[in-house]
Order: sequence, then structure tokens, then C-alpha cells
Amino acid sequence: MDNITAITGEYVVIKALDNGVTIIGLTRGQNTKFHHTEKLDKGEIMIAQFTEHTSAIKIRGRAEILTKHGSVTTGD
Amino acid sequence: MDNITAITGEYVVIKALDNGVTIIGLTRGQNTKFHHTEKLDKGEIMIAQFTEHTSAIKIRGRAEILTKHGSVTTGD
Amino acid sequence: MDNITAITGEYVVIKALDNGVTIIGLTRGQNTKFHHTEKLDKGEIMIAQFTEHTSAIKIRGRAEILTKHGSVTTGD
Amino acid sequence: MDNITAITGEYVVIKALDNGVTIIGLTRGQNTKFHHTEKLDKGEIMIAQFTEHTSAIKIRGRAEILTKHGSVTTGD
Amino acid sequence: MDNITAITGEYVVIKALDNGVTIIGLTRGQNTKFHHTEKLDKGEIMIAQFTEHTSAIKIRGRAEILTKHGSVTTGD
Amino acid sequence: MDNITAITGEYVVIKALDNGVTIIGLTRGQNTKFHHTEKLDKGEIMIAQFTEHTSAIKIRGRAEILTKHGSVTTGD
Amino acid sequence: MDNITAITGEYVVIKALDNGVTIIGLTRGQNTKFHHTEKLDKGEIMIAQFTEHTSAIKIRGRAEILTKHGSVTTGD
Amino acid sequence: MDNITAITGEYVVIKALDNGVTIIGLTRGQNTKFHHTEKLDKGEIMIAQFTEHTSAIKIRGRAEILTKHGSVTTGD
Amino acid sequence: MDNITAITGEYVVIKALDNGVTIIGLTRGQNTKFHHTEKLDKGEIMIAQFTEHTSAIKIRGRAEILTKHGSVTTGD
Amino acid sequence: MDNITAITGEYVVIKALDNGVTIIGLTRGQNTKFHHTEKLDKGEIMIAQFTEHTSAIKIRGRAEILTKHGSVTTGD
Amino acid sequence: MDNITAITGEYVVIKALDNGVTIIGLTRGQNTKFHHTEKLDKGEIMIAQFTEHTSAIKIRGRAEILTKHGSVTTGD
Amino acid sequence: MDNITAITGEYVVIKALDNGVTIIGLTRGQNTKFHHTEKLDKGEIMIAQFTEHTSAIKIRGRAEILTKHGSVTTGD
Repeated sequence: MDNITAITGEYVVIKALDNGVTIIGLTRGQNTKFHHTEKLDKGEIMIAQFTEHTSAIKIRGRAEILTKHGSVTTGD
Repeated sequence: MDNITAITGEYVVIKALDNGVTIIGLTRGQNTKFHHTEKLDKGEIMIAQFTEHTSAIKIRGRAEILTKHGSVTTGD
Repeated sequence: MDNITAITGEYVVIKALDNGVTIIGLTRGQNTKFHHTEKLDKGEIMIAQFTEHTSAIKIRGRAEILTKHGSVTTGD
Repeated sequence: MDNITAITGEYVVIKALDNGVTIIGLTRGQNTKFHHTEKLDKGEIMIAQFTEHTSAIKIRGRAEILTKHGSVTTGD
Repeated sequence: MDNITAITGEYVVIKALDNGVTIIGLTRGQNTKFHHTEKLDKGEIMIAQFTEHTSAIKIRGRAEILTKHGSVTTGD
Repeated sequence: MDNITAITGEYVVIKALDNGVTIIGLTRGQNTKFHHTEKLDKGEIMIAQFTEHTSAIKIRGRAEILTKHGSVTTGD
Repeated sequence: MDNITAITGEYVVIKALDNGVTIIGLTRGQNTKFHHTEKLDKGEIMIAQFTEHTSAIKIRGRAEILTKHGSVTTGD
Repeated sequence: MDNITAITGEYVVIKALDNGVTIIGLTRGQNTKFHHTEKLDKGEIMIAQFTEHTSAIKIRGRAEILTKHGSVTTGD
Repeated sequence: MDNITAITGEYVVIKALDNGVTIIGLTRGQNTKFHHTEKLDKGEIMIAQFTEHTSAIKIRGRAEILTKHGSVTTGD
Repeated sequence: MDNITAITGEYVVIKALDNGVTIIGLTRGQNTKFHHTEKLDKGEIMIAQFTEHTSAIKIRGRAEILTKHGSVTTGD
Repeated sequence: MDNITAITGEYVVIKALDNGVTIIGLTRGQNTKFHHTEKLDKGEIMIAQFTEHTSAIKIRGRAEILTKHGSVTTGD
Repeated sequence: MDNITAITGEYVVIKALDNGVTIIGLTRGQNTKFHHTEKLDKGEIMIAQFTEHTSAIKIRGRAEILTKHGSVTTGD
């Protein structure tokens, strides 16, 4: 049931420009901890929503990121 | 019943530019696991919604992707 | 009753550029399976909504597709 | 009562460019079948809503189609 | 009571460019039948809403039609 | 009470370009009949809402009509 | 109480370009009759809402009228 | 309590270009009568909402009026 | 409690261009009377909302006024 | 509890261009009195919402003010 | 529970251009007092929401501030 | 349950331009304290929502920040 509202949540698009780009989901709530890590190789794309469990996303490595505020490319 | 709200969820458009493009649905909820994998050959298109079961989509291989934040093309 | 909300769901427009364009509806829910296949000949058009039963649409063959994120044409 | 919500549903405009343009309503629900067929002669126009009974519309023959995603003309 | 919601329904504008333009209302519901026919002479205009009873409108004869997706003119 | 919602209904603007422009309100509901006729002389203007009783408006004679889809002028 | 919703109803602006411009409110409901007449002299302005009692407004005489669909000027 | 909704009602801006500009509030409801008259001298400004008691505003004398449909200036 | 809705009401900005600009709040309700008067000296600014008690604002003296319909400057 | 709705209220931005800019909050309700005064020195900025207690804001001294209707600068 | 609505409240962005920029939260409610002070050094950024406890924000020192009404830079 | 509404909260994008960029979440509520600190190295990106526990975000070090009010880059 909880998931229904979550389906319409915001999402971001992450395109890896190098091997080993790491996408880390940080937990929502009183403690902010890592709860999931996803690895992308060069050219792979991840489209990820904020969820009941994720209120922050951390990205490591060269990547192009599309958000509703515009896009950013992490440098080399 | 749950599906009714889901019908108006966001969708993305994925066009394969090579054979063997892989689209992976990651599960919503406390554990983020692969729950479905779809293969596209060159020129095939997939239009996919976020659902009750999918909160992240991972794409491997050369593809053009249209989202509400713009489009990205994965390089060679 | 369920269908009422569904009437306002999103739709996409698919125009076949060759004979034998295949439009495949994939099931919503825990299992993602094919539940309907529609064949279009050259010049035929299909306007299809996401429904209670369809959360992803796969298209094979040369076609022009109009969506809210723009249009894509599958190559030859 | 069900019809009230349906009145505000989306519609598309179909203009026949040749005699014998066929507009086929496909049923909403678990089975996707033809439930209505309408024939248009050259110059005739059909303005059709998605309804409780129709979740997909198939068009055969030369026609110009106006939708919220833009317009398409089927070739000869 | 049903009519109240219907008042805010979508409408289209039809201008006859020749005598004898025919506007046909098709019934909403499981059976799609003609339920009303209106004749326009050259220069007459009809502004028609979708209603509880009408989910499709068919137009025969030379006419200019204004809709939210743009306008179309039926040829000679 | 019914009238309250109706106050926010859509309206169109009709300007007579000749004497004897006729504006006919057609009844909403299962039977589509004339329920009111209004005559405008050259230069007179009518601003008319869709109402609980009117779901279509027919205009005869030379007139300029402003609607949310643009304006049309009936020819001579 | 009924008046509360009515306060946010649509309004039009009428500027008389000649003496004796007549603004006639037509009744909402099954019978469409005149219920109020207002006279404007040259240069006077009337800003009038649709109300619980008025669903159509008729204007006689030279006037400039501003509406949400644009403005019209009645000719001489 | 009634006044709360009224606070968000539409307003117009009236700037007197001459002494003695008259702003007349006409009553909402079955009878349309004058219920308030306000006089403005040259250069004075009145910003007035539609209210529970006012559904039409009449302006006499040279004035510039700003509304959501644009502005009008009454001539000399 | 009443004040809560009022917080989101419309506001206007008044900048005095001379000493002695007078801003008068007129009462909402059946009687339209002055209920508050505020004096501004040259260069002072007043940002004022419509409230439960104010449905009209009258401004005397040289001032620049910003509203959602544009800005007006009272002449000398 | 009352404060929750208030959080989304409108705000204005005030930048002092001189020492001693005074921002005065005027009370909402039947009596309009000063209830708070804030002093800004040159270069200081105040971002202030309308609240349950404030329905008007008066500003004295040289300042630049940003509002949803544009910005104003008080002269010297 | 109260915090949930607050999450969607407005925010402003403050970038310190010098050491010692002070951001002061003023209390919502009948008394307007300082309830929190935050210091920023040159180049530090603060992104702050209005909250249940804060209805005004005062900023001292050289800073660039981004709001929905545009941006302001405090002078030297 | 509380988290569901939070999923649609605003987010900001922070790109570190140097090693050691610090992102500090400040607590919502009567006391404004640090509740979480996240470190970013050069090129890392953080996409962070306001949450039930965070009403202000403080950023130290060289970073580019994208918000709905535009973007800011912290200087050297």
C-alpha cells in the first residue's frame, strides 16, 4: 500500500562516464546510513526514484546526472 | 485496486541502438534487488513505468533514453 | 469501476513504418510477462494507454513513436 | 454514474485522407479484443475519447491524426 | 445532478464550409451507436461538448474543426 | 445548489456581423433538442455558458466567435 | 452561503463606446429569460460576473468587451 | 466565516484620470441593485474585490482599469 | 483559526512618491465603510493583503502600486 | 497546529540600502496596529512571511524590496 | 506529524561572500524573537526552509541570496 | 507512514569541486542542531531532500549547487 504514493515520486537519471561509478542510497529517518550501493560501468544508465527508504543519493565517479534543476557532469 | 493509481505513474522511453540492450527493474522496498530483466535488440523500443514493484531502472548497452529531464544517449 | 480512473491514463502513439511492427503489452505486477501482442502493417497507427494490466510496452520493427517526452523513430 | 468521469477523458482527432479508413476500438481489461469498428470516407473526421471500454485505438488507411503529443499522418 | 460535472467537459467547434455538413454523436458505453444527428448548412457553426451520452463525434462534409489539439479542415 | 458549480463553466463569445444571427441552445441528455433560441442583430454580442441544460450551441448567420480553441468567423 | 463559490466566478469587462449600450443578464435554468438590464453611457465601464442567476450576457450598442478568450469591439 | 473564501476573490484596479470618477457596486442575487457608491478624485486609486455582496462593478468618468483580461481606459 | 486561510490571500505593494499618501481599508460585508487609514511619507512602502475585514483599498496621493495585473502610478 | 498552513504563506525580501531601515508588522484582524518592529542596517536583509498575526508590512528608509509582483526600490 | 507538511515549505539559498555572515531565525507567533543564529564563513552556503518555528529570516554580512522572487546581493 | 509524504519533498543537487566538501543536515523543530554530516570528495555528487528531520542544509567547501531558484558556486 505504501508503495502506491511512492510511484509518483521524483527520479534522477545517472549515466556513467567511466567504469565503477557508485550510486549510494542513504536512509531516510533519524539515522542517515548507507542502505544500498549500485555499481555502474561506463555507458550504463540508472534511473532512480526517491523512495520510502531513500532520502539522499550519493554518486562517486565520472557521471552525467539529469535532474529537474538541470544537469551536472562530474569532472575527471 | 493498487494498480489504478499506478497507471498514472511516470514512464521513460528506451530505444536500443545495438543488439542486447538490457533493462533491469530493481525492487522497491528495504532490499533493492533485480526483479525483472528485459532484452532489446537494435531498433527495439521499450516504454516502461515505475510501478509498485520497480523504483529504479538500470540500462546496459547502447541506447537512447527519453525522460522528463531530457534525453541521454549511452556512448559506444 | 476500476476502469474509470484508468480512462485518464497516459497514452502513446505508434505509427508503423514497415509491415509487421509488433506492439507487446507487458503485465503490471510481480511478474512481468507478455499479455497482449498487436501487429501493425505499414502506415497503420496504434494509440495505446497504460492500463491496469499494462505497465510497459515493447515495440519491434520500424516505427515512429510519439510520447510526452518527445518522439523517437526506430532505425532500419 | 460511471460515465460522468469519463466525459473529461482524453480525445484524439482522426481525419480520413482516403476512403475506407478504419478506426478500431480495442477493449480495456485482461483481454484485448476488437469491440467496435468505424469506417470513415475521405474527408470525414472522427473525434474519439478513450472510454470505460476502449484503452487502445487502431487506425488503418491514410489519415491525419491530432493528439496531445502532436500530429501524425499515415503515408500512402 | 449528473449534468453538473458534465458542464465542464471538453468541447469542439465545427464550422460548416458547405451545405449539408453532418455531425453525428456516437453513444458512450458497450455499444457504439449513432444517437443524434445534426445538419449544418454553409457558414453555420456548432459548438458541442462530450456528454454522458456522447463519447465520439463523426463529421461528414466540408468543415473547419477547432479542438484543443489544433484545427483541421476537411478537404473537398 | 446545482447552479453553483455551473457558474464556473466554460463560455463562448458570439458577435453578430449581420442582422438575424440565431443562437440555438441544444438540450443535454438522451434527447438532443432545441430548448432556447436567441436572435442577435448586427453588432450585438452574446456571451454564453454551457449549462445544466445546454451541451451544444448552434449558430446561424454571419458571426465572429471566440472560444478557448481560437476564433472563427462564419463566411458570407 | 451559495454566494461564496460564486465570488470566484469568471467576469467580463464591457466599455461603452456610445451612449445607450445595453447589458442584459439572461437567466440560468430551464427557461432563458431576461432578468436584469443595465444601461451604459459612452465611456462607462461594467465589470460583470456570471452568477447563480445569470448564465448568458447579451450586449447591444457600440462597446469594447474584454474576455478570457480575447477582446471584441462591436462595429458601428 | 463566509468572508474567509472571499479573501481570495478576484480584484480589479481603478485609477481615476479625472475628478468625480464613480465606482458602483451592484448586488449579487435575484435583484441587481446599487448597494455602494465610491467617489474617486483625479489620481486616486481603488483596488476592489468581488464579494459576497457585489457581483458587478460599474464605473463612470475617466479612469484606467486593470483586470486579468488586460487594461482599458475610458475615453474623454 | 479564521486567519489561517487569510495568510495566503493576495497582496499589493504601495510605494509613496510624496508625503502624505493615504491608504484606506474599506470593510467587507453589507456596509462598505472605512475601517483603517494608514499614512505613508515619501519613499515609504506598504505591502497589504486583503483580509477578513478588508475587501477594497483606496489610495490617495502620488504612489506607485504593484499588483498581479501590472503596476500603476498615480499622476501629479 | 495553526502554524503548519502558515509555513507555505507568501514572503517578501527586503534589503536595506541605508542604516536604520524599519520594517513594521501590522496586526491582522479588526484593529490594525503595530505589533512588531525590526531595524535593518545597510546591507542587511530580511525575508518575511505574512503570518497569522501580520497582514500588512510597512517599510521606512532606503530599501530594495522583492515581491511576486516585481521589485521596488525606495528613493532617497 | 506536524513536520510532514513543513517538508514542502519554501526555502531560500544563502551564500556567504565574507566571513561571519549571520543568519537569524525569528519566531513565528505573537512575539517575534530570535530563536536561532547560524554563522557562515566565506564561501559557505545555507539552504533554509521556513518552519513551524521560523516565519522570518534576517541576514547580516555580505551574502548572495536566491529566492523565488529573484536574487539579491548585499553590498559591502 | 510519515515517510510517504516526504518522498515528494524538494531536493537540491550538490557537486563537490574540491575534496572535503561537508554537507550538514540541521534539525527541524525548536532546537536547530546538527544531526548528520556527510563528506564529499572532489567530483562526488549528493542529491538530498528536505526530510522530517532536516529543515536546513549547510555546505562547506568548494561546491556547485543546483536548486529550484537557480545554481550557485561557492568561490575559492
